[in-house]
Amino acid sequence: MKWTVIATWKMAAEGVKLAETALREAGTAEAALTTVITDVENDPRFHSVGYSGLPNQAGVVQLDGGYMDGGTLSVGAVGCVENVASAFTLAKQCADYQFNNFLVGEGARQYAIQSGLEMKKLLTPEAQMIYEQRKAQPESLSSYKGHDTVGVCCLDSRGMLASGTSTSGLFMKMPGRVGDSPICGSGFYADSDIGAAAATGVGEEIMKGCLSYEVVRRMQQGQEPQEAASTLVAEFTQKLIRKRGQAEAISLICVDKDGRWGVGTNIKFAFVVSDQNHSAKVYVAEPTTDGCVIRPWNVADQDVD
Amino acid sequence: MKWTVIATWKMAAEGVKLAETALREAGTAEAALTTVITDVENDPRFHSVGYSGLPNQAGVVQLDGGYMDGGTLSVGAVGCVENVASAFTLAKQCADYQFNNFLVGEGARQYAIQSGLEMKKLLTPEAQMIYEQRKAQPESLSSYKGHDTVGVCCLDSRGMLASGTSTSGLFMKMPGRVGDSPICGSGFYADSDIGAAAATGVGEEIMKGCLSYEVVRRMQQGQEPQEAASTLVAEFTQKLIRKRGQAEAISLICVDKDGRWGVGTNIKFAFVVSDQNHSAKVYVAEPTTDGCVIRPWNVADQDVD
Repeated sequence: MKWTVIATWKMAAEGVKLAETALREAGTAEAALTTVITDVENDPRFHSVGYSGLPNQAGVVQLDGGYMDGGTLSVGAVGCVENVASAFTLAKQCADYQFNNFLVGEGARQYAIQSGLEMKKLLTPEAQMIYEQRKAQPESLSSYKGHDTVGVCCLDSRGMLASGTSTSGLFMKMPGRVGDSPICGSGFYADSDIGAAAATGVGEEIMKGCLSYEVVRRMQQGQEPQEAASTLVAEFTQKLIRKRGQAEAISLICVDKDGRWGVGTNIKFAFVVSDQNHSAKVYVAEPTTDGCVIRPWNVADQDVD
Repeated sequence: MKWTVIATWKMAAEGVKLAETALREAGTAEAALTTVITDVENDPRFHSVGYSGLPNQAGVVQLDGGYMDGGTLSVGAVGCVENVASAFTLAKQCADYQFNNFLVGEGARQYAIQSGLEMKKLLTPEAQMIYEQRKAQPESLSSYKGHDTVGVCCLDSRGMLASGTSTSGLFMKMPGRVGDSPICGSGFYADSDIGAAAATGVGEEIMKGCLSYEVVRRMQQGQEPQEAASTLVAEFTQKLIRKRGQAEAISLICVDKDGRWGVGTNIKFAFVVSDQNHSAKVYVAEPTTDGCVIRPWNVADQDVD
């Protein structure tokens, strides 16, 4: 009964603990993703995902989310959707059909209402205050505190792989901006014959390299997940610097069909892993010139959550 | 002075003829894409792109478009945008910035207005009539006449590669539906060190395989463009059938940094090519079990345009 779940950022730790209980009792990858992601979406402490997410330039919270079922390759995604309690749940629902798998904006919101999903005012007083403070000191757009998408990859005990994401995207983004989180192949990818992956960081960079697809492909060619993820992010960061003079934050998680996991990052990055032999634990990865080093998170790592 | 331009569907023939004149005089790939795509967007005869595009279930025309500069890997994309004369031009403009490269819905429309781009009522009386007729005979959603995205890949005489797309998407799609055309890696991809690609067909299938990215990657590994595109589409079609029981229409065009071009398809598919030695010519590709065969378009091929 082998299973593994890996998730981006320390904020996913409580959700992963909930998910591991279910996975131990033959829970599905799909259910595990839902547990982890909705736990983060509903938590007002986290300003980069769902409820209490930080708004765009116009003061409106617009969410992105994605889901891929590695068994069927079914994809569901939503971009720039407002007032939906769980962008991930809506995205997952979009994966149930043959067409119309990626919905954005008002059409996505209307579909959520018609589907009876929970609607919610997402902008909290605290998030609004952060927005007002930022508006008072205009400066060049830079992303907020690690632009922390929650991304989760899971292998369940039936051998199914799935991948999912949810985010409120870049703080002070332009209205209508969509990042990598709902983009199949960039924000997420899963193929139960091979592995699953998800990304966090600046979506505009991640989509230039289709990084979630590429890391799964490298696992297919025989690379171990840790080697695949860490060398891919290091190589692609170098490529961006060569072609563009700079590279923004990119972090990548993955798991293969045997339950082995891997991480790549070009910034200090925290993530959570649990499998059949190890209960949920938070790690920190830091980049090296050609990969990254991983160690357990400790209290000196409060700068990365 | 080597250059090549390749475009999806016969409807691109007039635009390719215009572009080849400029490419012969050292015109850029970016300008060639603009010439070909806006020619199709503005032509009311074509009901799958821009002006006179067929509407969604609610009777509204919503456009998708994408652009990638192979020199910088800059990406620009718009999804589900209304009343913009050229979704491609708007997408290309989104590529000029470091952030906010993919805009959708109302945010994308507002950005087009602010940028002074041409706005236009896109639904023509003829397209509305087709919509009314279809609404009168409800049936299961199926895509309209080959769901013909205009996709263009170009190598210019400076050695720059670029790729672009524009479409009104699936006829009778759900409001807010976005296809593969604005998805970097699925609808388009370009890297001037390797090659460029673009896709047409059912976006929901194309995005499951990140096919534009994957064909460029195969060219990087040394495959010739024709081998890369034709075997990729054949293999991925087989994979979809194995994992899902069926595969919808997929066609792919590509060009490499040496100006060699290739096509893959799982349906009868028409495309246009021009290079420094051959003026614009329309071809037809038809799938075989492991690739496709290509021959010049002739008057017996009126079923595919």
